[in-house]
Amino acid sequence: MSSARNVSVALRRARLPRPRCFVQPIVSRAPSRIATRSFSVTSAVNATKEIKYTSSAYPNLKRDPKFAEITAEDVAFFKELLGSQSAVIDGVTTDAADDIEPFNSDWMRKYRGHTRLVLKPQNKEEVSQVLKYCNDKKLAVVPQGGNTGLVGGSVPVFDEIVINTSRMNKIRSFDEGSGVLVADAGVILEVADQYLAERDHLFPLDLGAKGSCHIGGNAATNAGGLRLLRYGSLHGNILGVEAVLADGTIVNSLSTLRKNNTGYDLKQLFIGAEGTIGIITGLSIMCPPRPKAVNVAYFGVESYEQVRQAHQEAKSHLSEILSAFELMDGRSQQLVHQSTGNKNPLDSEYPFYCVVETSGSNGEHDMAKLESFLEHIMGEGIVADGVLAQDETQFQGIWRWREGITEALSHLGGTYKYDVSIPLPELYQLVDDCRERLTKLGFVGDDNSFPVRAVVGYGHMGDSNLHLNISVREYNKEVEKAIEPWVYEWIQKRNGSISAEHGLGIAKKEFIGYSQDETMVKLMKQLKDLYDPNGIMNPYKYI
Amino acid sequence: MSSARNVSVALRRARLPRPRCFVQPIVSRAPSRIATRSFSVTSAVNATKEIKYTSSAYPNLKRDPKFAEITAEDVAFFKELLGSQSAVIDGVTTDAADDIEPFNSDWMRKYRGHTRLVLKPQNKEEVSQVLKYCNDKKLAVVPQGGNTGLVGGSVPVFDEIVINTSRMNKIRSFDEGSGVLVADAGVILEVADQYLAERDHLFPLDLGAKGSCHIGGNAATNAGGLRLLRYGSLHGNILGVEAVLADGTIVNSLSTLRKNNTGYDLKQLFIGAEGTIGIITGLSIMCPPRPKAVNVAYFGVESYEQVRQAHQEAKSHLSEILSAFELMDGRSQQLVHQSTGNKNPLDSEYPFYCVVETSGSNGEHDMAKLESFLEHIMGEGIVADGVLAQDETQFQGIWRWREGITEALSHLGGTYKYDVSIPLPELYQLVDDCRERLTKLGFVGDDNSFPVRAVVGYGHMGDSNLHLNISVREYNKEVEKAIEPWVYEWIQKRNGSISAEHGLGIAKKEFIGYSQDETMVKLMKQLKDLYDPNGIMNPYKYI
Ligand SMILES: Cc1cc2nc3c(=O)[nH]c(=O)nc-3n(C[C@H](O)[C@H](O)[C@H](O)COP(=O)(O)OP(=O)(O)OC[C@H]3O[C@@H](n4cnc5c(N)ncnc54)[C@H](O)[C@@H]3O)c2cc1C
Ligand SMILES: Cc1cc2nc3c(=O)[nH]c(=O)nc-3n(C[C@H](O)[C@H](O)[C@H](O)COP(=O)(O)OP(=O)(O)OC[C@H]3O[C@@H](n4cnc5c(N)ncnc54)[C@H](O)[C@@H]3O)c2cc1C
Repeated sequence: MSSARNVSVALRRARLPRPRCFVQPIVSRAPSRIATRSFSVTSAVNATKEIKYTSSAYPNLKRDPKFAEITAEDVAFFKELLGSQSAVIDGVTTDAADDIEPFNSDWMRKYRGHTRLVLKPQNKEEVSQVLKYCNDKKLAVVPQGGNTGLVGGSVPVFDEIVINTSRMNKIRSFDEGSGVLVADAGVILEVADQYLAERDHLFPLDLGAKGSCHIGGNAATNAGGLRLLRYGSLHGNILGVEAVLADGTIVNSLSTLRKNNTGYDLKQLFIGAEGTIGIITGLSIMCPPRPKAVNVAYFGVESYEQVRQAHQEAKSHLSEILSAFELMDGRSQQLVHQSTGNKNPLDSEYPFYCVVETSGSNGEHDMAKLESFLEHIMGEGIVADGVLAQDETQFQGIWRWREGITEALSHLGGTYKYDVSIPLPELYQLVDDCRERLTKLGFVGDDNSFPVRAVVGYGHMGDSNLHLNISVREYNKEVEKAIEPWVYEWIQKRNGSISAEHGLGIAKKEFIGYSQDETMVKLMKQLKDLYDPNGIMNPYKYI
Repeated sequence: MSSARNVSVALRRARLPRPRCFVQPIVSRAPSRIATRSFSVTSAVNATKEIKYTSSAYPNLKRDPKFAEITAEDVAFFKELLGSQSAVIDGVTTDAADDIEPFNSDWMRKYRGHTRLVLKPQNKEEVSQVLKYCNDKKLAVVPQGGNTGLVGGSVPVFDEIVINTSRMNKIRSFDEGSGVLVADAGVILEVADQYLAERDHLFPLDLGAKGSCHIGGNAATNAGGLRLLRYGSLHGNILGVEAVLADGTIVNSLSTLRKNNTGYDLKQLFIGAEGTIGIITGLSIMCPPRPKAVNVAYFGVESYEQVRQAHQEAKSHLSEILSAFELMDGRSQQLVHQSTGNKNPLDSEYPFYCVVETSGSNGEHDMAKLESFLEHIMGEGIVADGVLAQDETQFQGIWRWREGITEALSHLGGTYKYDVSIPLPELYQLVDDCRERLTKLGFVGDDNSFPVRAVVGYGHMGDSNLHLNISVREYNKEVEKAIEPWVYEWIQKRNGSISAEHGLGIAKKEFIGYSQDETMVKLMKQLKDLYDPNGIMNPYKYI
């Protein structure tokens, strides 16, 4: 390590205009040092403020009369079936409004349903019996995991029964040789990752909501997150899915093999289906060895063009050890500061910031690569300033500036969230264009008379994935109309995706046509009808 | 590099019992040095020897009378539609038996059909019109790429029309920034990889048949190959698929975005569907930067237990730069020697051999990791002897000892091939058990009176994927009966897969029940009916 440090020091002296913290990085050989990185998501904001019912916000949406209304008899059946007290929250025959409320409203406090019944089955057999009953009686349901989804998919619109996975929370097996984890759908992502950390492995997915979201929910939304760049998509990593179809059929595709070419890969359909064709009850997933060395750096950058250069250089210098390249604009970082009161790691303000993370098996090698990268981007003036985490606290601290944005925004009122894929050259242009549009319309301003507080952009640069967020003082139909469908048209023109990782839910249902053609939508509807002919699974959403 | 070399030398002196070639590895910074690694597959063996018709080998299989017989009128329609002479091989109205033969018989010379018509459409519109016509007229078809498949899926059984993709061979685009390649289905894998090599990128799939197989065929079989371990499965790497359904519907799901969560991921169904629900006409795929340094070593090992130890050590020491860990047993290497006359890289014979490949961005770092690995496995006596490629020729040479097995075997007569996934601890046990079984039955011996020449095992150790090959002097029903279903029962008991990467085709169709339960098979049949209600796509196969 000493030689690495010397180069760092040399770097500082020779190249940094404002020499700062490019000192010793974290080179943790004890994986537990990074095992604890957590970011618990407090269920959002303004808890006192009433959330508008989705049925009022979307007045065109009518309850489908084909669905039955829940009766006391139904409730009795479920109570009998699920046994335990804690498995049924019954707002039908008792007054349980307060207990039910958290299951009716979403993390953003933007969507709110009218359910009067929450069920928490404990295994696939119970899920199967619940669904069979609902299907026979035409009772609509909403599968729900950690309820951290950002498109309103996880909560009811009307009186759909919530089937929550939180009591299916067992890790079933882990094989150290192959790295394959088999677990119930309701295991919390962070719990799974901690379990793996103790066994020197890593869950191949990481995201800001890890302390609350369920791995079944992650699969159901095909979540992307912070390290997709390195570990790839869930379509590649999930080896097996156990699920229950609308009619109660148990789909047992829980293979633990890396390769299994015996027929159509049906499990893929559940990944990203957002609970519209069945409930995932378990999954098996390939988990890589936990990296022995992890470094993270935070940069200030003067222009988006330079961010792109830094990204190219990171790919070239860091190559196989690059595990995250995240982009945040200046305004988003100001909002984190405003919301948390924390001091930004850099002295001056910049229009852009990046978080660059490396993960590797040899701290010295990684450091050497990182130094060559730093030397290059500092030497060439591609980035203006930067810090490298020196210890666990700084490591967590830096990540919080990126991961904290979603929550920081939620504390400031409402947020119109657009999670989009756009080819890199124009990625940030969308934010500028949107800000300009809303400013021209007179919506944006610093005092409370303006509906829009800020138009910010951040996201997973390494995956061409931008989060455009319009932070509003409260949700406002005028503002929404100014953004939509304008934003979707903008994206369609660039062959982008209107939903990169968050999915469709209720928020994007109407707009799928901007990213999929008619034939695709027709084929999707055909599949939906095949697996859920009565349409009881998460109605009013997705397609 | 000099210090790396010194350590190597020290290693040689201090640790190697028989100091040999652990000298300077290939550290190619010019990617073109590895761009040329190729292994062209000569369409097999004994070309003079007649191949038995599949219809005779499987007498229970009857031509389905629901399919129409091809008429001169049909041929005229296709000639008119496809225009060019070279697009139609017409054995209906002309005598084209010789021209058609290569399309009727498979690479192993084990399966042979009776087609009298081969069509080579040039784009999705032509494929769409061909399929629409066939569907309307109930003419059965077989999609065919490079015809290197190893389960008889790519050739007709009766008179199905072959729709070959070789004239859809254009690379459509490549974006250096994102590494996304968009290409026609009929592009040869090696051609795609060479194209990428010139642009410092790599096709994330590599296999022995690369000189002949098509990337559409790779997708249709969900091919695994030599580097799945490093780059992951096609389900993760393929970003988009363009395909035509049986009724001519064009499915345009050719996204080039890494993330696109807008509805069911339908393209996944075509990956591994072996031409039973549609014809893939194009795909987009994520290609990683070509590694700057590639090293390859070849080891002799005394026992399977030690192979497993070496594998564990490779994972731990080489971690993110490990790009292949291949296993070959002694007998398979003897057969390569017998077939090619080449001298084995090692002086003595061993019961097991491994090929270990690293790919990384920094030759010195990779070498240091490799040395620590070598030091460990040699020092601990885990491997008995080994060589490290010193130049391009040695690099190619070593790989040929692994990649040459399939072809070497094909020159020696017939081969019963079982491409299976088994949990690592018991992976090789299957070969021992099978050899013992066939030996006890008196089938195995060195002279021509014995039907079985050898029972060998090799494969992609890093993916728990074994190729059990029974080399026979000629195909023999008695031997087959002794192997099947015994081998499938053996695998089922270990929760393995009866087809890891080659697929089902006609060879494994009957046996899917050993790896998928009744519900899964029912759901698969349901999907097949949905997309191909007339059953014209690749009949008699798959499920
Ligand atoms: C602070 C914060 C940061 C985030 N960062 C990211 C990010 O980086 N990347 C990203 O992709 N997402 C991100 N998200 C969104 C969200 O966390 C993910 O979509 C997550 O995967 C949802 O999991 P969940 O268990 O909370 O699912 P829920 O919100 O409960 O449900 C989401 C959808 O999946 C369905 N569903 C849930 N469980 C099941 C099941 N077992 N079977 C079938 N259907 C089911 C629901 O019906 C719903 O449609 C973030 C959210 C927050 C609050
Ligand atoms: C020497 C040798 C080594 C091999 N090594 C490996 C290996 O390491 N890993 C591995 O996985 N396989 C391996 N194989 C098997 C084979 O090469 C692969 O399965 C390959 O992907 C087949 O591609 P192809 O273009 O030759 O397809 P074909 O053989 O022509 O077709 C295979 C199947 O796919 C269907 N198909 C082909 N093209 C299309 C299309 N465009 N649309 C729809 N369906 C289509 C066919 O109907 C058929 O069912 C090897 C084969 C040989 C001869």
